[in-house]
Amino acid sequence: MLTPKELGSARLETLRRLREAGIALTEAEEGSVEVADFGLGALGEVGLELITYVNTDRCCAKELVLFPWQVCPEHRHPPIGGEPGKEETFRCRKGVVYLYVEGPPVSPIKGRVPKGRESAFTVFHEVTLAEGEQYTLRPDTLHWFQGGPEGAIVSEFSTRSRDDSDVFTDPGIKRATEVSG
Amino acid sequence: MLTPKELGSARLETLRRLREAGIALTEAEEGSVEVADFGLGALGEVGLELITYVNTDRCCAKELVLFPWQVCPEHRHPPIGGEPGKEETFRCRKGVVYLYVEGPPVSPIKGRVPKGRESAFTVFHEVTLAEGEQYTLRPDTLHWFQGGPEGAIVSEFSTRSRDDSDVFTDPGIKRATEVSG
Repeated sequence: MLTPKELGSARLETLRRLREAGIALTEAEEGSVEVADFGLGALGEVGLELITYVNTDRCCAKELVLFPWQVCPEHRHPPIGGEPGKEETFRCRKGVVYLYVEGPPVSPIKGRVPKGRESAFTVFHEVTLAEGEQYTLRPDTLHWFQGGPEGAIVSEFSTRSRDDSDVFTDPGIKRATEVSG
Repeated sequence: MLTPKELGSARLETLRRLREAGIALTEAEEGSVEVADFGLGALGEVGLELITYVNTDRCCAKELVLFPWQVCPEHRHPPIGGEPGKEETFRCRKGVVYLYVEGPPVSPIKGRVPKGRESAFTVFHEVTLAEGEQYTLRPDTLHWFQGGPEGAIVSEFSTRSRDDSDVFTDPGIKRATEVSG
């Protein structure tokens, strides 16, 4: 649950970061910034801000904004109706992002697992994306990612996005954001 | 046919424009800028510069660069092997782009049809995209587009790209660029 104040200030901060990176938006897009707290009510720690440019039956593009050390929690995109799960490419536009996927784990990691939520993070193969670098995830692969010390802006290029089908490792997560009051 | 000098200077100008727009590339990407003259040898008039970020069986993302008044010539993406043609979204990142698609024509248009090539331009439904604006093309739709007075940078989000299957209105066009010498 987010308060209206938290929602408003996260939206403003998102717009500020996109503007600073020279990423132009329409007024309608500026009004449609999505703030996801994943139902945990700890947005600064576990959260994601996003703008969906296009999402058709066939393809999707989004701009993702991560504040410093903000984590998009571990999840995967399962197959649906005979189609393989969502395939996605993350391209770092600004800052640095630490991406964790299935594969040989590293230790220690550069990212920071949110305290008290350790059991919801199980993959630790680390991919560090600096500006201009990208990584393509195979469908149905567990992954989580985190903005670096200055945060990050990440373009996502993918097949159709169906957020309500995402499978999160943390059973307490609700993908749809609720705002109090 | 392009000369090596034309190719080199178009690549440098492309990188300069991307840098100026704050679009970060890896060194490998900087070395892989594609310059398409469509076999017409009149790059400043009919041409396109591009970087392909990702192109899998399922989706594709590119950055397109148009110099001032440079035209990407009229074409469509036909169905292949039972799949509908490529679906693409053009998102203007910098400058302005004039996009022409099937539909009620306007007259006069803001764009400039290259002299002597009028017969290769047949659709004149005009969509002007300023920074932050975008348009999603249905598959197999004829379209052409042109950079405005200052040129343009356009992100393309699409299904799989198979450039060698594109159908151009101008029968003299060859999609693969040849370099002399």
